[in-house]
Amino acid sequence: MRATELPHIAADILMRVRARGPRVHCITNSVAQTFTANTLLAAGAIPSMTLSADEVGAFVARADALLVNLGTFDAERRDAAAAALEVAGEGRVPWVLDPVFIDRSEPRAAYAKSLVAQKPRAIRLNAAEFAALAGAEPDDAALTRYALDTLAVVARTGTVDRITDGAQFISIENGHPLMARVTAMGCAASALTAAFVAVESDPFAATAAALLCFGVAGGIAGERAEGPGSFPAALLDALYALDAHTLDEKARVT
Amino acid sequence: MRATELPHIAADILMRVRARGPRVHCITNSVAQTFTANTLLAAGAIPSMTLSADEVGAFVARADALLVNLGTFDAERRDAAAAALEVAGEGRVPWVLDPVFIDRSEPRAAYAKSLVAQKPRAIRLNAAEFAALAGAEPDDAALTRYALDTLAVVARTGTVDRITDGAQFISIENGHPLMARVTAMGCAASALTAAFVAVESDPFAATAAALLCFGVAGGIAGERAEGPGSFPAALLDALYALDAHTLDEKARVT
Amino acid sequence: MRATELPHIAADILMRVRARGPRVHCITNSVAQTFTANTLLAAGAIPSMTLSADEVGAFVARADALLVNLGTFDAERRDAAAAALEVAGEGRVPWVLDPVFIDRSEPRAAYAKSLVAQKPRAIRLNAAEFAALAGAEPDDAALTRYALDTLAVVARTGTVDRITDGAQFISIENGHPLMARVTAMGCAASALTAAFVAVESDPFAATAAALLCFGVAGGIAGERAEGPGSFPAALLDALYALDAHTLDEKARVT
Repeated sequence: MRATELPHIAADILMRVRARGPRVHCITNSVAQTFTANTLLAAGAIPSMTLSADEVGAFVARADALLVNLGTFDAERRDAAAAALEVAGEGRVPWVLDPVFIDRSEPRAAYAKSLVAQKPRAIRLNAAEFAALAGAEPDDAALTRYALDTLAVVARTGTVDRITDGAQFISIENGHPLMARVTAMGCAASALTAAFVAVESDPFAATAAALLCFGVAGGIAGERAEGPGSFPAALLDALYALDAHTLDEKARVT
Repeated sequence: MRATELPHIAADILMRVRARGPRVHCITNSVAQTFTANTLLAAGAIPSMTLSADEVGAFVARADALLVNLGTFDAERRDAAAAALEVAGEGRVPWVLDPVFIDRSEPRAAYAKSLVAQKPRAIRLNAAEFAALAGAEPDDAALTRYALDTLAVVARTGTVDRITDGAQFISIENGHPLMARVTAMGCAASALTAAFVAVESDPFAATAAALLCFGVAGGIAGERAEGPGSFPAALLDALYALDAHTLDEKARVT
Repeated sequence: MRATELPHIAADILMRVRARGPRVHCITNSVAQTFTANTLLAAGAIPSMTLSADEVGAFVARADALLVNLGTFDAERRDAAAAALEVAGEGRVPWVLDPVFIDRSEPRAAYAKSLVAQKPRAIRLNAAEFAALAGAEPDDAALTRYALDTLAVVARTGTVDRITDGAQFISIENGHPLMARVTAMGCAASALTAAFVAVESDPFAATAAALLCFGVAGGIAGERAEGPGSFPAALLDALYALDAHTLDEKARVT
């Protein structure tokens, strides 16, 4: 995939999400749950969020993708993740890992490493989280090595998103500074990645496409919002209305 | 009650909610908690949401109505519901059941059936949830039978809301397609039903009135919002400002 | 501190929050988590919210302030608070108590009293909560006595916020009636107090400054919002943009 092709590919995958309405089960932190659900719905996907070990398996078995986000790391969520990943593994349900804040807590980092062994299609994280997960500075060499070792697409997001599957690299410079002043933005981007992975078998294209759509919607929201309070609603409005022309016009991909 | 009377009745019950500020205790899923609390506050009711088995009884004993929503079905919420329903039964606190997603999980459907035996005043659900609960297609005959069997008002919501107590039927065609693209809309409608049941002893009138108010507010929000992101705030603004004239003008009731 | 100095002091502390980005760990109720996180981010602070007893200590050890909010009072949050307060005590991390709804439940009131013994820098509550905590009418004499007994700043908020450290008193009449129609406003004000306590060693100045900033932002939001739905976003936008000139112009402090 060439960088110039990404806007077109992203529009295509987004249309498939809207047409198919993939079910995305999310094991995510309570701070991010509402915005994550609304991001998936705005994109055309169908979220579910139960954490009960008794039934999470039934939800995952009927889901098209799974998100595991570590933003609040408690016994209930660990049990839910174990049950969910067992079913996802059997049913080949693709899943995405978001190892939130693993740089703040060693038990959480150790737990994230154990999850990586269960073969996520993609891992989205920031630079500090990558360093805690991979034990290396988040440069291109380390991203490549980690992607090759884990067979996952690695997406290190920030002012510039840097995405690799170990062979290909792509950079996205969309988004907006206000995204750092609102909670759950990264969590929602990871959930959108799961929705894209649900309908696109190439996880590198799916991950880059999801992050481009989210970044372009964020950029539009930054122009329209009057501050961080009105930003999340503006982002969802933009994501809902996103089309091929806007993606092509706004994409800053190299 | 004739359908043409509903806008007037709804305005009257809404005024009573605003005047009395009923306390509504909500056992609901974490995704819906914030929007549910804000819906109740916008309508003039006072929400509480604790799940602790140690104190949920104290909250319910001082509440005017109770909501039990199964959107996240975990041990903590089941314990809370058991404690809450025991106190509600003793104190004749009316309660509303929202059996979210019971079509996705058999243990959840079985649990919902056990709750119905504890005599909710109203059950709000969608067509798939009704089918899972009643074991029948969600047509008028089945709705009637289920309402008569359970002595609950049954409200099957969707593009058209269909409400019955087994004897009377009413249909509401308000709302807006964006309501399907935002999380917690049904959950909040159920909470509003609980607030209306708190101040109106006829559960059929209370349920139909709550769903009309929510639907009209949703329709106004759909005209004003720029997408699903700005929709929830617009709905709450409209619900807060709702008056008899607007209800009369906008109601599509048969 | 004279009342006329507060706007200037508040602007100064707010600038320090923006410059330093203090980390504020929040043990708070699930209804308030998202708005609380977004309030801290809008002010320039960095929230974290994990409740896991395994790691809450690691988060608090690296935090600049701690909030303990009792809005949902469950075993998990009590365990988290115990672990957090132990680390906060050792590391001299300042903390703020928000004893939500203790007037509704005696076990919760008893628990709040036990937390006060662990020396919060500030306690923010409404009149009914103060009465349940202090066993006295919330007048100036009782506020003074309670502040002197506990060595905490006591902030009884409402239409007029009344703040004392037992020696000094200040009243703030900012805010807006819509703040009573939106959930989590008090919870977020307490979190902002924690952020201010993180960068200002005088807890009386920090508490009064935080409540002034929140009240002025609320007043601006009340002018701009179309109802309780659009109010929270407008408040965050106003808080993000707040400057010394606006504080000086809008403050109603005596």
